[in-house]
Amino acid sequence: MAAVNRRIVLASRPHGEPSAAHFRLEEGRAPTPRDGEILLRTRWLSLDPYMRGRMSAAKSYAEPVAIGEPMTGEVVAEVAASNDPAYAVGDLVAAFSGWQDYAIATGKGLRRVDPALAPPTTALGILGMPGMTAYAGLLTIGRPKPGETVVVAAAAGPVGSLVGQIARIKGARVVGIAGGPEKCAYLTETLGFDAALDHRGDDLPGALAAACPGGIDVYFENVGGAVFEAVMPLLNDFARMPVCGLVAGYNATELPAGPDRTPLLMRAILTKRLHLQGFIVWDFADQAPAFQRDVSDWLKAGRVTYREDIVEGLENAPEAFIGMLRGRNFGKLVVRVA
Amino acid sequence: MAAVNRRIVLASRPHGEPSAAHFRLEEGRAPTPRDGEILLRTRWLSLDPYMRGRMSAAKSYAEPVAIGEPMTGEVVAEVAASNDPAYAVGDLVAAFSGWQDYAIATGKGLRRVDPALAPPTTALGILGMPGMTAYAGLLTIGRPKPGETVVVAAAAGPVGSLVGQIARIKGARVVGIAGGPEKCAYLTETLGFDAALDHRGDDLPGALAAACPGGIDVYFENVGGAVFEAVMPLLNDFARMPVCGLVAGYNATELPAGPDRTPLLMRAILTKRLHLQGFIVWDFADQAPAFQRDVSDWLKAGRVTYREDIVEGLENAPEAFIGMLRGRNFGKLVVRVA
Repeated sequence: MAAVNRRIVLASRPHGEPSAAHFRLEEGRAPTPRDGEILLRTRWLSLDPYMRGRMSAAKSYAEPVAIGEPMTGEVVAEVAASNDPAYAVGDLVAAFSGWQDYAIATGKGLRRVDPALAPPTTALGILGMPGMTAYAGLLTIGRPKPGETVVVAAAAGPVGSLVGQIARIKGARVVGIAGGPEKCAYLTETLGFDAALDHRGDDLPGALAAACPGGIDVYFENVGGAVFEAVMPLLNDFARMPVCGLVAGYNATELPAGPDRTPLLMRAILTKRLHLQGFIVWDFADQAPAFQRDVSDWLKAGRVTYREDIVEGLENAPEAFIGMLRGRNFGKLVVRVA
Repeated sequence: MAAVNRRIVLASRPHGEPSAAHFRLEEGRAPTPRDGEILLRTRWLSLDPYMRGRMSAAKSYAEPVAIGEPMTGEVVAEVAASNDPAYAVGDLVAAFSGWQDYAIATGKGLRRVDPALAPPTTALGILGMPGMTAYAGLLTIGRPKPGETVVVAAAAGPVGSLVGQIARIKGARVVGIAGGPEKCAYLTETLGFDAALDHRGDDLPGALAAACPGGIDVYFENVGGAVFEAVMPLLNDFARMPVCGLVAGYNATELPAGPDRTPLLMRAILTKRLHLQGFIVWDFADQAPAFQRDVSDWLKAGRVTYREDIVEGLENAPEAFIGMLRGRNFGKLVVRVA
């Protein structure tokens, strides 16, 4: 008899901040692989801010999760049964099989994970999608030059922390913004950032101006909101802004009060000749080999490091996800499923 | 005795739309060139939207015109006297010598104009700064590909008309937006645009959507305002937006009413992976030779054309400039000074 398959489905679409009521834990039977198929058993599930977007019906770069369907997400899974000669029981793979214990896969879309090279969870973090997001967005759009100032928010998270470390490797001065003194200390003491600012402080615009006496050349945008407002007046001519995420607004239910400040942004783009460009990691798929090579080398050489925040048990994924949107995690948020 | 030098100076800074009262016509004596200097006599003065920005004290990419100083502007001038062996009396040059009859120059910053190659006024239009603005902004940032849809506003003006014609040469489908049926007919009948829309029509968003059934891949932004609002929902993934001007807002005295729609723009940049980039023509100075070669060739081959709107007399420059900001000119606005 097949094992129990727990899965967390989208129960309803949140208006504003998600709560536990928007998720539902269901139990069923693990599916049976057919010819050419593989049964995956989830070991670790990655939780990432983009998932908030998938809970909404609004058009985006990906289809929303349907009501009653498992939440989307990347996992590191073990092959539990295989009808594909290319995969043996016990092999580890990364797959987009969602918030559940078991899933059927074909070889298509799987990425092998070699535990001898690095801890398997790194395939969900620094050597996975968040790492490549940082690498490709910073180097392709941000293009920091030696001596320039790079600002990144959510800087203790998996994307921001690598953005800052790569910018340092490229010779830039790096100012990170994070929530709370513990994360700020991590940025300067462990990651070697030049300065760290607590966005919960009294005067973020003033603190940022003081930390960036030469202005800002690259702002890696992954939060929006108050940080964006503090950054804008400090941008130098020809500054670049890779737009990777806007997590501060993901739970917003209405637009900020007026006036409409769009003309100010457009005027700044014109007069400062700014370059703003949105991207998602898939847009840079051709950079995957360079990313894997460079970041693996930097990891081995101790030039970059990472931090994980591991939550135990699939049933705790919704609460951990809700907390992440509030900035409660400290490091790459991963759920240990089995 | 030296000739009379009329000059139009900035009398006061406008709050909102400029009026005749913000300009003052002064008369003095033409200056006398010293060793190595040249006396320029203005033949034609170019009027361009960017000059509105120089009338304000706000920080921009260039210094504001000082109160009491001549309005800034590029001219085609004749050498009236020369103490520089490189320039002979009667030579034509383009110079940034402003709204006045006479000016002193050195060879530095002058560009020779050969009347045998093209009418001298083209040095202020299709073969000058507006032309190069169109060429460099469209090809460097817009990068239209065959079959893509390019939208440009102020399309009967010197920048917009060349943007559309170059986009056609590159194989794109071109939709122009202009004010009034006469300009729209010019776009489709003379310039070969695929469609032309009157921004004074009842339903610009609906008309634009109908004219762009495959969405918009490049929006050359030179007006902002209602056109920008109509364009945004139609932008395709990976659309490019060279931000060249925002003339619809140049006379604005306050921001539009709320809510603040900035987060909608940022969300569109992210989810559609838009590329917005501001520029001014000087940023692409290294492209000047390629621009001169390509556009001269296209002119000779009849692949691009242009239209001028000539105003007689320096004293009429303020009224012509004010009218241009309202879209009253039809073609490159040039003042015949002498």
